[in-house]
Amino acid sequence: MKLGDGVEQAIHSMAMLACLEEGSTLSASALAEYHGVSPSYLLKHMQALSSADLVDTVPGPKGGYRLKRKPDDISLLDIVLAVEGPQPAFRCNEIRQRGPNPLPARYFDKPCGIAAKMLAAERVYRAELAKTSITDLMQDLQETDDGAIAARGCAFLDIHERKQVR
Amino acid sequence: MKLGDGVEQAIHSMAMLACLEEGSTLSASALAEYHGVSPSYLLKHMQALSSADLVDTVPGPKGGYRLKRKPDDISLLDIVLAVEGPQPAFRCNEIRQRGPNPLPARYFDKPCGIAAKMLAAERVYRAELAKTSITDLMQDLQETDDGAIAARGCAFLDIHERKQVR
Repeated sequence: MKLGDGVEQAIHSMAMLACLEEGSTLSASALAEYHGVSPSYLLKHMQALSSADLVDTVPGPKGGYRLKRKPDDISLLDIVLAVEGPQPAFRCNEIRQRGPNPLPARYFDKPCGIAAKMLAAERVYRAELAKTSITDLMQDLQETDDGAIAARGCAFLDIHERKQVR
Repeated sequence: MKLGDGVEQAIHSMAMLACLEEGSTLSASALAEYHGVSPSYLLKHMQALSSADLVDTVPGPKGGYRLKRKPDDISLLDIVLAVEGPQPAFRCNEIRQRGPNPLPARYFDKPCGIAAKMLAAERVYRAELAKTSITDLMQDLQETDDGAIAARGCAFLDIHERKQVR
């Protein structure tokens, strides 16, 4: 079982977007540069975040991405599902129904007990991811920061933040 | 995020091995036939279960696979880790350390807060999988069985079980 590298990139990018002034945007290429990752690969994940209604895509020369909801209303689960898709990791192929001598269909009205247990574990995983919002991540970061982390982020935003025209 | 199909096959196969008389074995090809799956693909997963010390591989004409531990001492987590490997699904690439203008290394003594939250969710997932043993799965199955499921399994084992020479 493996989550794609896009999950890490998407979470860090969402945290960076949470630092923008209201209405401002960042381009995918700026986010890619900041995190030292492939711009085309990150763009794909930003589009997935946009499709999931987690970010707005603003067109034009001042365009880019910005959060569509408040940071405390966006959880790790939202981001993971946007990037990886909503399907559970365990996908039951109903192999109990295969092979020679299958049972009558009425035995399969109830989901396979193995699938039920696997999906129950995924529910607790998702519930745990849903507990952490972007705001929580930013608070955790601030607690470890003596100023240098914020200064680095601000230096980056001074150059790359695309401010809303008022 | 996706678990390989081998997880489902391995769990069902382990449940079937739990039905054997003490010392008896089943071949990978018999298990593959019963579940209607590729013998070569299942063999790979049986070897992974063997490497993880969950099954014994008995060589020779009466050989095959049998559980190495009691069914109530083998959990879903044991099987998932055997087939999928022990690495967590979220693998931190430390992208916070990349890009231009990186912070001094001392800021990275503590694990990234994002990785910490993602791994915390995996811990609860694993803990949930660890709660269910093969014995639990068999008990769940028995509760839904009016006899036909057991009869189907017994008919299969009558032909394929390789009993220990006494």
